[in-house]
Amino acid sequence: MESAVRPAPRPLQVPSTTGLVRQGEREPKWLVQAEKPVHYEVRMANDLLDPSRSDLAEAGVTKSTDNRRFVVIDARVEAHYGHRLRAYMKAHRLEPWFCTLAVEERSKTLDSVTQVVKELDKFGISRRHDPIIAIGGGVLLDIVGFAASLYRRSTPYVRVPTTLIGIVDAGVGVKTGVNFESHKNRLGTYFAPTLALLDKTFLGTLEERHVCNGLAEILKIALIKDEKLFKLLEAHGTELVESRLQSASVCGDAGQEVLERAIHGMLQELQPNLWEHELQRLVDYGHTFSPSIEMLALPDLLHGEAVNVDMALTTVIAHGRGLVTDEDRSRIGRVMHRLCLPHYHPVCDATSLVTALEDTVRHRDGYQRLPLPVGIGDARFVNDVTPEEIAHAVDTLAARGLDAG
Amino acid sequence: MESAVRPAPRPLQVPSTTGLVRQGEREPKWLVQAEKPVHYEVRMANDLLDPSRSDLAEAGVTKSTDNRRFVVIDARVEAHYGHRLRAYMKAHRLEPWFCTLAVEERSKTLDSVTQVVKELDKFGISRRHDPIIAIGGGVLLDIVGFAASLYRRSTPYVRVPTTLIGIVDAGVGVKTGVNFESHKNRLGTYFAPTLALLDKTFLGTLEERHVCNGLAEILKIALIKDEKLFKLLEAHGTELVESRLQSASVCGDAGQEVLERAIHGMLQELQPNLWEHELQRLVDYGHTFSPSIEMLALPDLLHGEAVNVDMALTTVIAHGRGLVTDEDRSRIGRVMHRLCLPHYHPVCDATSLVTALEDTVRHRDGYQRLPLPVGIGDARFVNDVTPEEIAHAVDTLAARGLDAG
Ligand SMILES: NC(=O)c1ccc[n+]([C@@H]2O[C@H](COP(=O)([O-])OP(=O)(O)OC[C@H]3O[C@@H](n4cnc5c(N)ncnc54)[C@H](O)[C@@H]3O)[C@@H](O)[C@H]2O)c1
Ligand SMILES: NC(=O)c1ccc[n+]([C@@H]2O[C@H](COP(=O)([O-])OP(=O)(O)OC[C@H]3O[C@@H](n4cnc5c(N)ncnc54)[C@H](O)[C@@H]3O)[C@@H](O)[C@H]2O)c1
Repeated sequence: MESAVRPAPRPLQVPSTTGLVRQGEREPKWLVQAEKPVHYEVRMANDLLDPSRSDLAEAGVTKSTDNRRFVVIDARVEAHYGHRLRAYMKAHRLEPWFCTLAVEERSKTLDSVTQVVKELDKFGISRRHDPIIAIGGGVLLDIVGFAASLYRRSTPYVRVPTTLIGIVDAGVGVKTGVNFESHKNRLGTYFAPTLALLDKTFLGTLEERHVCNGLAEILKIALIKDEKLFKLLEAHGTELVESRLQSASVCGDAGQEVLERAIHGMLQELQPNLWEHELQRLVDYGHTFSPSIEMLALPDLLHGEAVNVDMALTTVIAHGRGLVTDEDRSRIGRVMHRLCLPHYHPVCDATSLVTALEDTVRHRDGYQRLPLPVGIGDARFVNDVTPEEIAHAVDTLAARGLDAG
Repeated sequence: MESAVRPAPRPLQVPSTTGLVRQGEREPKWLVQAEKPVHYEVRMANDLLDPSRSDLAEAGVTKSTDNRRFVVIDARVEAHYGHRLRAYMKAHRLEPWFCTLAVEERSKTLDSVTQVVKELDKFGISRRHDPIIAIGGGVLLDIVGFAASLYRRSTPYVRVPTTLIGIVDAGVGVKTGVNFESHKNRLGTYFAPTLALLDKTFLGTLEERHVCNGLAEILKIALIKDEKLFKLLEAHGTELVESRLQSASVCGDAGQEVLERAIHGMLQELQPNLWEHELQRLVDYGHTFSPSIEMLALPDLLHGEAVNVDMALTTVIAHGRGLVTDEDRSRIGRVMHRLCLPHYHPVCDATSLVTALEDTVRHRDGYQRLPLPVGIGDARFVNDVTPEEIAHAVDTLAARGLDAG
């Protein structure tokens, strides 16, 4: 058995120069070379809507910004926080223009993007200095980020995630997108926000199921690269769910520590590979079968729940290959249970999962590049998972989950 | 009178490092910094469909490309060249999948983009190694480039422009896009093709009006930065139109020289500013009022024709400011006339043009940044064009064009 292999960070193919080179006489050709610098800040900031804080008021502001603000906000978030947000804007003498969207996974479509675009037209946004502020969960952030990247071929925006998935995943990277027909995130862009403001106090009003949903992405980071994080989830799982990761809870600072480790681990993986030049990505763990599972089960499974089903499946496959011990498999199963995450869904039959893998192989340009856990806190990539292994894993999960056989 | 000022090439704001920086304790923040390398080739290649040429067969090919090709082609181009294209593909043992689009400016919309996306889904394109080949005019290239940039957040593509606008402008840069409601190119991306193949023999079947349309963009380059190019247009304008810039014509190699100068001049302007960090762009000459003029007059004016009306207008404004002499104004007018380009359209009333300028000011982030010709072959930027100047210029053009008063 080979030892666990972490892919060596492959440098991007940076051309040695930027410039315009002309070659050839009879049939001339030109080489156009350039580098696009991208930088953004991800900032934890508790209780953003406290009027004594200036983060949100100053977010995305340039020299020529006036006091207008274009705010796109999730309808449920509006219901909970609209009042405080208006008071905040007033305290900072800002004139917000609200575009409230009642969106969910099923409306993460081009139509929702054009809805935002129409509002931007009505508002008459400036190309570079009126910040677009997006406040909501992963669905809203993906839609608004997409709209911002397309509007006049790019308009700056600020991300304020209000769900746990948003805080540890959708809110901190550069990906935007919408579903198209039955395909998850089939259309999208890489478009960095100028700033992401992460305020965990928003989690206070989040439904428990959505807290667990976000914990699935945290568990992903734990499984592939951070054993310490796994142990925190193992020790405090239930309390983390109940307290919604707020520090005032019984588990002291565990909530904060879990968030920081998860965000840091995620950004470490994203930064060297912002545009996914490297298709072998550790953070794709749990995202091999889940795009199809999520779409097939819609609206049954949330994103993180589908990811968890995928992680359960690949844990069984890894176990079958001797990469995960009986004991670790059971530990993983217990943590998933504590985080109220499903390890199975009836749409998971072997045929659909093999089709799902085929689509992912196209997405990863011809290879499975499938991350499998190695023990807890490490991973390796494989390209040779067979339909038989998949069928066996599904049967196992359907029969008895991750418990020892 | 200040002397003509060419903007100093402003360096992009390149951060000194790439990497992930974590700062702060109680409320940590992370700075994510990276650089995206972009490079592509623009190649002149006559008679691409000659089976002895391999450019098109090899375009966009990677190690793992098989013999399938996804070709999106303009319906009129298909009618003219479909037969030869199929023979070419056969000679190279390639299996093309044709997606034929009957598009025009009015169907440069998101709907056309989703049409391409649906075909890509049906074809089951791989993420990195099945090249998308776009063959057509600026409209088709803008649509396909947009679809390619969005599909799985970017799928490589090759541009094969078949119109003059395509060869000297839409085909050689990195911009993609569609119109939205009444707004020209309101949605789009910056997405470089892997390769642009420029074959001027396609111009042989182009309607004369579309040849003139492309010559407008060439005239633009001449006016702002290339007096020699202007003189070529002045000397050979009529023959260039009649011969469709083919070298077998009476004017010898003027067609080739005009194309090379125009492409080179265009790429010189584009390369240092691929993502339009600098909003003060010489190549925006003729593109201040024209986006609105084109949309208002639709389908009356072609893109280049609307650009020409804008250039006529700004030439009169420049003349009024003493930047262009009586004689040069007349020379410009004569060349426009020889190239069969309109200097006026009834939608141009002062009110609409002032509104058009306002929208452009938003697009240029609060400033007019309006390039005005200085003599012939040079330009300067101004920010203080008044409604009165605009009204006066329109009246002048409506009354007697660019002829001396
Ligand atoms: N772009 C990326 O890198 C990335 C990464 C991970 C996930 N995603 C995407 O994110 C989406 C999932 O995000 P999500 O789980 O946040 O879903 P979501 O945006 O649908 O939010 C979940 C629910 O919580 C509600 N809500 C949001 N904030 C709330 C709050 N503070 N209090 C009460 N209710 C609140 C919403 O209205 C919604 O009903 C998926 O579409 C997934 O593809 C994107
Ligand atoms: N992306 C950019 O940087 C950029 C730059 C300039 C213009 N554009 C866009 O390009 C568009 C205009 O492009 P266009 O002028 O090529 O228009 P177009 O694509 O509509 O083509 C003009 C006409 O010529 C036909 N045609 C194309 N090739 C032919 C051939 N070889 N023989 C016979 N007929 C042929 C087409 O079917 C069409 O009817 C505008 O939408 C404009 O916004 C984009």
